[in-house]
Amino acid sequence: MFSKETYVNRRTELKKLVKKGVILLFGNNESPVNYPSNGYYPFRQDSSFLYYFGINRDGLVGIIDIDEDTETIVGNDIDIEDIVWFGSVDSVKELAASVGVSKTAPMKQLQVICNEALRQHKPVHFLPPYRFDTKLQIFDLLGIHPNQQKEAASLELINAVITMRSTKEQQEIDEIENACSIGYKMHTTAMRLTKPGLTEKYIGGQVDGVAHSYGAMVSFATIYTQHGEIMHGAPRWDELQDGRLVLCDAGAENRNNYCSDNTRTYPVNGKFTQRQLDIYSIVEACHDYVLNVAKPGVRYKDVHLAVCRLMAGKLKELGLMKGDVDEAVNAGAHAMFLPHGLGHMMGMDVHDMEGLGQIYVGFDEETRPSTQFGTNALRMGRRLEEGFVVTDEPGIYFIPDLIDDWRAKGLHTDFINYDVLETYKDFGGIRIEDDVLITADSCRFLGKERIPYHPKDVEEFMANN
Amino acid sequence: MFSKETYVNRRTELKKLVKKGVILLFGNNESPVNYPSNGYYPFRQDSSFLYYFGINRDGLVGIIDIDEDTETIVGNDIDIEDIVWFGSVDSVKELAASVGVSKTAPMKQLQVICNEALRQHKPVHFLPPYRFDTKLQIFDLLGIHPNQQKEAASLELINAVITMRSTKEQQEIDEIENACSIGYKMHTTAMRLTKPGLTEKYIGGQVDGVAHSYGAMVSFATIYTQHGEIMHGAPRWDELQDGRLVLCDAGAENRNNYCSDNTRTYPVNGKFTQRQLDIYSIVEACHDYVLNVAKPGVRYKDVHLAVCRLMAGKLKELGLMKGDVDEAVNAGAHAMFLPHGLGHMMGMDVHDMEGLGQIYVGFDEETRPSTQFGTNALRMGRRLEEGFVVTDEPGIYFIPDLIDDWRAKGLHTDFINYDVLETYKDFGGIRIEDDVLITADSCRFLGKERIPYHPKDVEEFMANN
Repeated sequence: MFSKETYVNRRTELKKLVKKGVILLFGNNESPVNYPSNGYYPFRQDSSFLYYFGINRDGLVGIIDIDEDTETIVGNDIDIEDIVWFGSVDSVKELAASVGVSKTAPMKQLQVICNEALRQHKPVHFLPPYRFDTKLQIFDLLGIHPNQQKEAASLELINAVITMRSTKEQQEIDEIENACSIGYKMHTTAMRLTKPGLTEKYIGGQVDGVAHSYGAMVSFATIYTQHGEIMHGAPRWDELQDGRLVLCDAGAENRNNYCSDNTRTYPVNGKFTQRQLDIYSIVEACHDYVLNVAKPGVRYKDVHLAVCRLMAGKLKELGLMKGDVDEAVNAGAHAMFLPHGLGHMMGMDVHDMEGLGQIYVGFDEETRPSTQFGTNALRMGRRLEEGFVVTDEPGIYFIPDLIDDWRAKGLHTDFINYDVLETYKDFGGIRIEDDVLITADSCRFLGKERIPYHPKDVEEFMANN
Repeated sequence: MFSKETYVNRRTELKKLVKKGVILLFGNNESPVNYPSNGYYPFRQDSSFLYYFGINRDGLVGIIDIDEDTETIVGNDIDIEDIVWFGSVDSVKELAASVGVSKTAPMKQLQVICNEALRQHKPVHFLPPYRFDTKLQIFDLLGIHPNQQKEAASLELINAVITMRSTKEQQEIDEIENACSIGYKMHTTAMRLTKPGLTEKYIGGQVDGVAHSYGAMVSFATIYTQHGEIMHGAPRWDELQDGRLVLCDAGAENRNNYCSDNTRTYPVNGKFTQRQLDIYSIVEACHDYVLNVAKPGVRYKDVHLAVCRLMAGKLKELGLMKGDVDEAVNAGAHAMFLPHGLGHMMGMDVHDMEGLGQIYVGFDEETRPSTQFGTNALRMGRRLEEGFVVTDEPGIYFIPDLIDDWRAKGLHTDFINYDVLETYKDFGGIRIEDDVLITADSCRFLGKERIPYHPKDVEEFMANN
């Protein structure tokens, strides 16, 4: 949690950007697992609520009345029975004061406040809700059916929040660095433990444990899998097999809810085969290439496409692709190997602000999203600015279902050597991912310690740990 | 997952109990954390859906038309883009067949099926929903506002499900034993790691890691705290202090979603003080007492009250209580020390079936819940039957806010020695918890290995591990 002034200043700036009306920022509530009371997933506050109000407690709504220049935290205090079960906590009044908000009200006042705003025909701004309890709350408060709330959400508010949250303050960068240091522990724990015979589940679980020990939680469900060709492959009960690669994509959310997101791919037995190295080296080159070109003013979509061309050229050298490289990438043939985007924004959400709409976060009037398979999965395309944090995560995958699907449809036969590709169906997939901070005239990786990824470093680490 | 016959037989029995109409059993969907897509908590299927349909995938609804004697799984198949991201999975048809259901339909058919049932004035049975997406689904399907769905839920269905799920089959007991073996690893990991200077968060995180490594997840948010007096005290960033007790209440959910739930309390430095032993021995005696009296035909409310009297008698010997023990317990004075119930049902939900309504799960026409503070928190009161699994979890807590509150109100001054009690305000709290299976004429603890709890065993374990 930052200083009181941080939140006061952010709200002042937000008011300037949105100009008029009443802003409702819904904090999150507890999220039930398998029954309503006590059966909760770990509480996660809404990121925009945290950004402007900084209070990490469930059951709150922040209201900013721009016209009246008032700010209110709405929420109920706890009673003695709550104290017995959950311990004594600060009152809503005290919490509000700690972030520079002087007005508070019990939850039942929220409907009154909304009715008054509607009566006065003030614009009521809210962000697109992603939790169903918030959708129900908005339905009851404003009479807008959940199916129409995405459209009814305020574009002025969305754009203002994205403008502000896209550029990370120094104190936010420090928090992300802190999350990366937990991420380092998670990944090196996985590398240290990896050996034939253990289950994917066992190691995935230990990685989660590190995140829970040093941070708030994982920033997303940990991927630790010998099936690297599945983008979001959950750990299975399968045993690790000598000769295979394992892909670990995992990140921490630190105690102040900032994220890390890294991927490493390494041999179960600690030693790459030549065939694995051939593919790995291409991904490594693509990953490192980004560091040379990402900087303010450059479109991340262009970096993505440059990486695709670099990758396609090298796959051609290996005999997996053929024909003209530029034409192949223009046609989208490379998406057989890289069916996702180069990266996404990262911050308090691991896909930062994704709930506000990818089209607003990653694109603008100048840079539009693609509809082509593969590039359509790029989450961040627009020009980079100083203070942006994006992931750099190229990968090469051999996806049997996709190979069969494209081959049956006769897709991109000018650019893909299907006969060679068939021999890679048992390969799996490789991804290398780091988090990149855009600086004044260049960029750098976040994280004080680099999780080993150069093959020599990986083999050395696994041999000695 | 059990045999096809298991699910067929359970549904046949359910149909007999509910007699007529259409039963809708809603499976769970993914639960968003901080944005809608990919930002999910770990998927947890609904327990009743699992019990009757056994399929551990999101986005399904099971329909049993009793009048037509048909069963249908409603859900959408995945396409090639899903396969790229999440891997190839069985079709809904294949999944349905694996649990003996021959009919399937895409999700858009659900509204048609509901409309047809409503048109024919068939009773449409559903369980009380606890997730907000399910509430919205029911609202859209049946036009019942979320605020009225608890009342609109089918009492016939609730009672039938509780009747069936209360009595555990042998294969379910085996699963719970399996969860207990993971719980054993969780608790002994915590005991092994505990020492002054480490943070509560660190050890709590490692406990979670063990659950994730060997099971599906934790069965509830792990409690590991030096503030044992807070019933649901989350691990803090505080360092463990020499001389204090630490309370660990944690459980596993195994890969088939059966739970364990145990609590241990032990000294941070591995050695009890005499003052700690005085209180600990009372809780130990209460915990062990249950094993002698819980059996078929006995009301668990009576076991709870017998434990309260045993505890009050021993607290009187220590000078913390005074006056007539029976009168003290009748008046509810013991709830100063034990403000919760002796235990709850356990199975696929750690508070088994709590979502169906505690009043139906734990009580019946003969045994009604209490409104008295403390005993009103008892989740299970009715007569025990063979095959029930309940927790046995007495505790003694010194809760500064509660002491101040009662003293200020002059409550139970005939039974509580407030001057002595004041000197315990820094003590914390102690709970010992195990899971009990009711057998044909007696009961036994579940779990092949007992997590150490006799003081001698605890000290020995902590000295040698």
